[in-house]
Amino acid sequence: MRVVLIVEYNGSHYCGWQSQSAGCSVQDVLESALSKIACCKIRTITAGRTDAGVHALYQVVHFDTAAQRPMNAWIRGVNAHLPKDIAVIWASEVSLDFHARYSATERRYLYFLLSHPVRPGLYHQRVGWFYQPLSLPQMQAAAKILLGQHDFSAFRAAECQASSPIRTLTKLEISCQGNIIIFELCADAFLQHMVRNIIGCLVYVGKGKNSPDWMQTLLENRNRAKAAPTFSAAGLYLAGVRYDPKWNLPDFSQMPFMVTLPLAGR
Amino acid sequence: MRVVLIVEYNGSHYCGWQSQSAGCSVQDVLESALSKIACCKIRTITAGRTDAGVHALYQVVHFDTAAQRPMNAWIRGVNAHLPKDIAVIWASEVSLDFHARYSATERRYLYFLLSHPVRPGLYHQRVGWFYQPLSLPQMQAAAKILLGQHDFSAFRAAECQASSPIRTLTKLEISCQGNIIIFELCADAFLQHMVRNIIGCLVYVGKGKNSPDWMQTLLENRNRAKAAPTFSAAGLYLAGVRYDPKWNLPDFSQMPFMVTLPLAGR
Repeated sequence: MRVVLIVEYNGSHYCGWQSQSAGCSVQDVLESALSKIACCKIRTITAGRTDAGVHALYQVVHFDTAAQRPMNAWIRGVNAHLPKDIAVIWASEVSLDFHARYSATERRYLYFLLSHPVRPGLYHQRVGWFYQPLSLPQMQAAAKILLGQHDFSAFRAAECQASSPIRTLTKLEISCQGNIIIFELCADAFLQHMVRNIIGCLVYVGKGKNSPDWMQTLLENRNRAKAAPTFSAAGLYLAGVRYDPKWNLPDFSQMPFMVTLPLAGR
Repeated sequence: MRVVLIVEYNGSHYCGWQSQSAGCSVQDVLESALSKIACCKIRTITAGRTDAGVHALYQVVHFDTAAQRPMNAWIRGVNAHLPKDIAVIWASEVSLDFHARYSATERRYLYFLLSHPVRPGLYHQRVGWFYQPLSLPQMQAAAKILLGQHDFSAFRAAECQASSPIRTLTKLEISCQGNIIIFELCADAFLQHMVRNIIGCLVYVGKGKNSPDWMQTLLENRNRAKAAPTFSAAGLYLAGVRYDPKWNLPDFSQMPFMVTLPLAGR
């Protein structure tokens, strides 16, 4: 039997999604909790291998098991064995044809950036931070250039293992709420560090170091060394994975994803 | 010279505002950082002594010092010595007549409650949680009864040191965003545990254990033992302190206090 889960987590205290020998990853603690419910070793496949410090509010995971359990055991039973900063929020049996990674047609990330002279306190590890003023129109102009299918080699980590650097960025919207700049990015898939490298370059444009056209040059030159440094993981949230409706996962775009939490206006 | 600060913090890892011999309080670490900048021992007075686990996005503090420093030293200089989950976000010199506690005319608190069968993960320590459905109209009817000047003895901690249990609740609004219920409370001042005890009683009404009229009975009987247990500190935020405009503190009601941070819709 194949089971699919939606999982949320605060990534601050983990070495990323992917299993490590030190056992410090989200995958390690989730597999440990699932294995306790199944009474045998469970291995998981995920839609998105988030970096250390990156959060998720809609991560998708599947696993196979012979254990017959009520679906609630895969939610509340597993949650009883998980650290309190990770929770399974939805579970369903799914056909063996479904694959959390290969069946995914779109990933959505959100980035929250505090734009203020003073560093965050209450939202330490929850938002990125930049202390100089940023031009929203300049960043929006730069973002437009990245939309569509491109070779994203300039935005790809040196250690990225993807076979192709070609990705299709379907959304890159930048908005502002008080002193928080919100970036929403959707693509078929993302290369390693791609979102954080894009944010880093947009911040360079926003602070006036580069013009929006610089994005075109970066795309054409395909040279990671010419782009901005990888931006902080703290403000990054995996916020949805899309699948063919036949799989019956809750559609993240139909869910009331955003909620107002307080951040000091400054 | 008297200096007034606005401070934000994540209270999760502190034993509350008030100084403790163990040095685990927000006041302890703030005074330690201020003392480093002043080069002598600084003692602070605060507008609101928040409990362990309670957060602040607009806490007001004053202190006296003979040290002459540029105002920015009391912000960014102090922040360099503070733990990353606490930040001074504003500072100003103020007349010796100003008192963070006694000059305050109104305190504002926000409470964020996740109403969902499954516990929080991403927002562990940031939101309260209740697993049964809650009736918003019933809670709103109960809230109305508490508005105005009352003897709040039924909502007061046994160890509360206030000389009078009389307080004037000027606002108690309850709204809903997705699965998050947001409570906004304003009063001249709050008794110890008063917000968390009110939330506990509103949850009793919301789940149908008691009718809204029960609030009237609680007020009249003034008996803490008849009320609901103190609700979790996790979802509580000190979100503003009001002073006479002559003191020139930024008005919290004029600040863009709320920002949208993501929480998984469920």
